[in-house]
Amino acid sequence: MTDEILTPVLPTVPFLDCQRIVLCRPSHPGNIGAVARAMKTMGLGYDTRGAQLYLVNPLCAVDEVAVRRAAGAADLVTDCRIVESLAEALFGCTGAFGMTVRARELGPEPMRPKASVAAAHAYWLGGGEAGAISAFVFGNETNGLTNEELQHCRAEVSIATNPEYGSLNLGAAVQIMTYLLREVSGNQTAVDTGATRYASPLATVDAVDGFYKQLEVAMIKSGFHDPARPRRLIPKIRRIFERTRLEADEVNILRGIISALESPDKTPRKVD
Amino acid sequence: MTDEILTPVLPTVPFLDCQRIVLCRPSHPGNIGAVARAMKTMGLGYDTRGAQLYLVNPLCAVDEVAVRRAAGAADLVTDCRIVESLAEALFGCTGAFGMTVRARELGPEPMRPKASVAAAHAYWLGGGEAGAISAFVFGNETNGLTNEELQHCRAEVSIATNPEYGSLNLGAAVQIMTYLLREVSGNQTAVDTGATRYASPLATVDAVDGFYKQLEVAMIKSGFHDPARPRRLIPKIRRIFERTRLEADEVNILRGIISALESPDKTPRKVD
Repeated sequence: MTDEILTPVLPTVPFLDCQRIVLCRPSHPGNIGAVARAMKTMGLGYDTRGAQLYLVNPLCAVDEVAVRRAAGAADLVTDCRIVESLAEALFGCTGAFGMTVRARELGPEPMRPKASVAAAHAYWLGGGEAGAISAFVFGNETNGLTNEELQHCRAEVSIATNPEYGSLNLGAAVQIMTYLLREVSGNQTAVDTGATRYASPLATVDAVDGFYKQLEVAMIKSGFHDPARPRRLIPKIRRIFERTRLEADEVNILRGIISALESPDKTPRKVD
Repeated sequence: MTDEILTPVLPTVPFLDCQRIVLCRPSHPGNIGAVARAMKTMGLGYDTRGAQLYLVNPLCAVDEVAVRRAAGAADLVTDCRIVESLAEALFGCTGAFGMTVRARELGPEPMRPKASVAAAHAYWLGGGEAGAISAFVFGNETNGLTNEELQHCRAEVSIATNPEYGSLNLGAAVQIMTYLLREVSGNQTAVDTGATRYASPLATVDAVDGFYKQLEVAMIKSGFHDPARPRRLIPKIRRIFERTRLEADEVNILRGIISALESPDKTPRKVD
């Protein structure tokens, strides 16, 4: 391993095909249609798995009103993927950006819209041949994302608005973000210094979750963490690692360390 | 004239108050409402003369549908200025940017959206104390701007869209342009909720080094790390945590976890 040559693998899947739009509990069919149209005008639509539009527990029917408002993007409304949990919508994603109007206590890393699409682009570049996938997660029209939903996201993104009237329509917010995604997709040539940017593909959300789970169990067993008096330890730990964009190999290293610390070899190596 | 000192006069009127949105022959009241809402969320609304929304010969009534779609920007719909010619809507403007999907023969200078808002900002800066005014001119939903209308504009601006489906909704197009206007204005303040962004100050380099040292010793003792065959483990671990900008408290949490995993139940619980 000492002298291995690291060769970066660049994505062959286009950037815009690696983005998902996730709507949590949308309540107006017209907005779903507007979102589909916003996506399609900016070049989002279908990836190899299906539609790039996910609805998590929609509070309304995805009906004729949605189809009409979608205009030429009606197919995307018909084919959108309806799932029962945010985790399901984020499965396989490396980036997860939660759109919020107001910052939350111990929320994920705050980001401006431009920084978020730049991060999604960097994830994509680091995701190996398939390109890492990112999701932009939008909350319910009235209440936005719950704190629990935000905990699933690696960053929270706020679109700066008029402080006296910040009520961006859902379709309008998606239009702004997809516009920025399309814009950043055009800047695909970066200065190549030959340096290895990624040793292994970026870890998926579910892979990192496996690490958290193992760590939590180890912390409880060792007496460090008392689930009866959680003191926000778990969110604090997630916050550390969600900022660091772990690679798949790095997750394995961290999990290996925990296992090793829990069951040391019978003949420990000498430290000097 | 030879020795006069030229002192630049900077505008006292805010940039966003110097922008107009002009809709030529709009045909759907819902779109007029969506445009008003898009404007208001980004801080456009009224200047000293009145509403910043102009309608040139609307083909529909500005009715209840428009008011409903405008939501909290209903006042702007009610107060919008209805005029009979584009020249009237552009009176007093320094900048006039015509939004088009397709470039025209002998049309005005073509510009990307970003270049157009940068130009509007430069006009404003150069406009003396009152700030020069710019108008962004949008055509009819079906036919866009006529060649004659475009001749009144100093530049034609195209939003890059999906070549296979470029049909941006009128409200969505205005939302993108007003977002970019707000961005170039520097009014990028997000809503400050007073939420805790940092639980403790960022850790110093030496504090983080102390954590690395403790981790290294623990990894060696447990048999996970063999200094005789290092396999770049230490640089790989540093790489993980150097990306994450650890806080002082977080270093303590991580060090506490290592101690606890090494000696279960001997470490007193200490989180926070």
